[in-house]
Amino acid sequence: MTSLFKMALPVSRNASLFLRFIQNRKCSSPKRLLCSAPCNENKVDPPAGGRVFSGIQPTGVPHLGNYLGALETWVSLQDRYPSVLYSIVDLHSITQPQDPAQLRLNILDMAACLLACGIDPQRSILFQQSQVSEHAELSWILSCLTTMPRLRHLPQWKMKSKQKGEGSVGLFTYPVLQAADILLYRSTHVPVGEDQVQHLELAQDVARIFNNRYGDLFPEPRPLLSATRKVKSLRDPTAKMSKSDPHAMATIHLSDSPDDIMVKIRRAVTDFTSEVTYDPAARPGVSNLVSLHAAVAMVTVEEALAQARGLDTGAYKLLVADAVVTRLRPIREEMERLRADRGHLEVVLAKGSQRARELAAPVLMEVRRRVGFS
Amino acid sequence: MTSLFKMALPVSRNASLFLRFIQNRKCSSPKRLLCSAPCNENKVDPPAGGRVFSGIQPTGVPHLGNYLGALETWVSLQDRYPSVLYSIVDLHSITQPQDPAQLRLNILDMAACLLACGIDPQRSILFQQSQVSEHAELSWILSCLTTMPRLRHLPQWKMKSKQKGEGSVGLFTYPVLQAADILLYRSTHVPVGEDQVQHLELAQDVARIFNNRYGDLFPEPRPLLSATRKVKSLRDPTAKMSKSDPHAMATIHLSDSPDDIMVKIRRAVTDFTSEVTYDPAARPGVSNLVSLHAAVAMVTVEEALAQARGLDTGAYKLLVADAVVTRLRPIREEMERLRADRGHLEVVLAKGSQRARELAAPVLMEVRRRVGFS
Repeated sequence: MTSLFKMALPVSRNASLFLRFIQNRKCSSPKRLLCSAPCNENKVDPPAGGRVFSGIQPTGVPHLGNYLGALETWVSLQDRYPSVLYSIVDLHSITQPQDPAQLRLNILDMAACLLACGIDPQRSILFQQSQVSEHAELSWILSCLTTMPRLRHLPQWKMKSKQKGEGSVGLFTYPVLQAADILLYRSTHVPVGEDQVQHLELAQDVARIFNNRYGDLFPEPRPLLSATRKVKSLRDPTAKMSKSDPHAMATIHLSDSPDDIMVKIRRAVTDFTSEVTYDPAARPGVSNLVSLHAAVAMVTVEEALAQARGLDTGAYKLLVADAVVTRLRPIREEMERLRADRGHLEVVLAKGSQRARELAAPVLMEVRRRVGFS
Repeated sequence: MTSLFKMALPVSRNASLFLRFIQNRKCSSPKRLLCSAPCNENKVDPPAGGRVFSGIQPTGVPHLGNYLGALETWVSLQDRYPSVLYSIVDLHSITQPQDPAQLRLNILDMAACLLACGIDPQRSILFQQSQVSEHAELSWILSCLTTMPRLRHLPQWKMKSKQKGEGSVGLFTYPVLQAADILLYRSTHVPVGEDQVQHLELAQDVARIFNNRYGDLFPEPRPLLSATRKVKSLRDPTAKMSKSDPHAMATIHLSDSPDDIMVKIRRAVTDFTSEVTYDPAARPGVSNLVSLHAAVAMVTVEEALAQARGLDTGAYKLLVADAVVTRLRPIREEMERLRADRGHLEVVLAKGSQRARELAAPVLMEVRRRVGFS
């Protein structure tokens, strides 16, 4: 899940255990379209309560950190906003080389995973980015409103292009496509991780530039920063849990079996003190287990510690593993059930993409008209 | 007409007067699609005789240099190839700021101009790039196969970004969109000017990279370099005739009235020798008039000189002006007639765009399948 939007990655430095939104000011009713001719405003305007957009790259099964940091948020946003779009951003995923058969599988797997986590295609529009041609089209138009230095200074390009030698043009320009993803639906709120804030700022800038040049069309999308736990690696509790961790024992995937989970947590790095306490700075390993426990059991840190009373870290690991297994079992089972029915997943994505297109098409038509294409 | 494809700009250093194609080897029958499932090859494959693609930016009425250097070629290619596509590349035009109303007008004007010059919508597919969403979609995919240094070294970016300070991302990446324009139709031949050869090489490289990674799909597009006259500025016969020439008297536009043409040619810079001779190095001004005369009258330089016998340059200018007026009158009149009927032009472009989409859609579908999107 090397990602763009990735997911709303955890940002809190103080490991607050419950999900809350820092910037959840309700969006003031978005500006009306300045239509010179009568146009169907209902088709173009996001609803008064706001519209949420986020995307996730189909690059493998999400891990527990992704789930607790972002996917849980995605699920909860379905109850908080009248219009919610989640996109499997396959156009973004090819900014790194992908095996085609694997990519196809990953797209369907990601759909299965999101559904299993609780994304409800009745309340959300769950769709595949590449099936909505308007994303690439708007991206081109916005790229003509973005200067080269504006992209060159984004930290992810600096980092990734260094890692991989010279990156592709797509890797360089993907923040513009990301801006297009968001603006195409006139989205008002975007759940993002801390590492994506600068990319959302680009989307805000581009919206402003477009509105100034062509008249108000795009609401300025606001970040929904989820101040949640940062799940740490089980092998190095000073680093965050990551899909790309070379150590297989470091990361719990949503597809892991109960046995896998048990082994990984039993071998989790802790320290030489057997008592269970919560002190992330001094005791990162055991504190990570307490955080994890509290998060999956949906209790506070204090309640988790109360349950740990009298247990040494070895025994506590079994308790935590059991809590993780209990939490992930229904997700894993549902994922497996869904993955067995490719046809169903394809139908879900096709329907979602159709609904996304219905929102995207009138916005792009309006953009085209304003730019002078039609 | 600052352009991409611009038009097939004149390239000959020796001012050969007649149009000929340097690289007009007939395309070997393009490789068959590697379809895993039965697919409609006829829809995707270009015809055996090859497919021509070129584009022109809608940035104002073409001038005589454009016409003699490129548009004439475009017209003649209709007789030489079984499939010919000409695109008004409005997506490219917004890499520089455009006034929307003016851009809309310029698109229709360009359609009128191309029709008036002899582009026949029965034999060519004449269409507006932005109306075929597949261009931007394929461009994104190809941008992920193109490295940053590959674009950075293209001379036009170096030149234009210097001229305009830091250019936009669109200005930087437009050669990738241009590659997509060409490859989307599996084009085999592309009339280009000398200044566009490196851009066509990029399209060739990207085709090769795609074919290597995903299996043969794109024929390598070949340049049709038109070794034609380079029409010079009437005010500075050492520079080529250019739309952006600040001197109004330097450039003859296809929309110029007979009076305009007469004045511009009468005031054309020559020298102090009254005899008419052809010696581009020593006498660029009068030689430019001879070239022009020969080109518009469709005679050789020798025949033009024979007609000039006994005339001083002043009298010869009247003869040249008359020849230019005679040649351009039907084009100008037809252009005016067509411009008066916006509805008709819109229908022509809509029909052309529909036909272009019918060719583009199955190719993009195949690309998507190979990349792993579907």
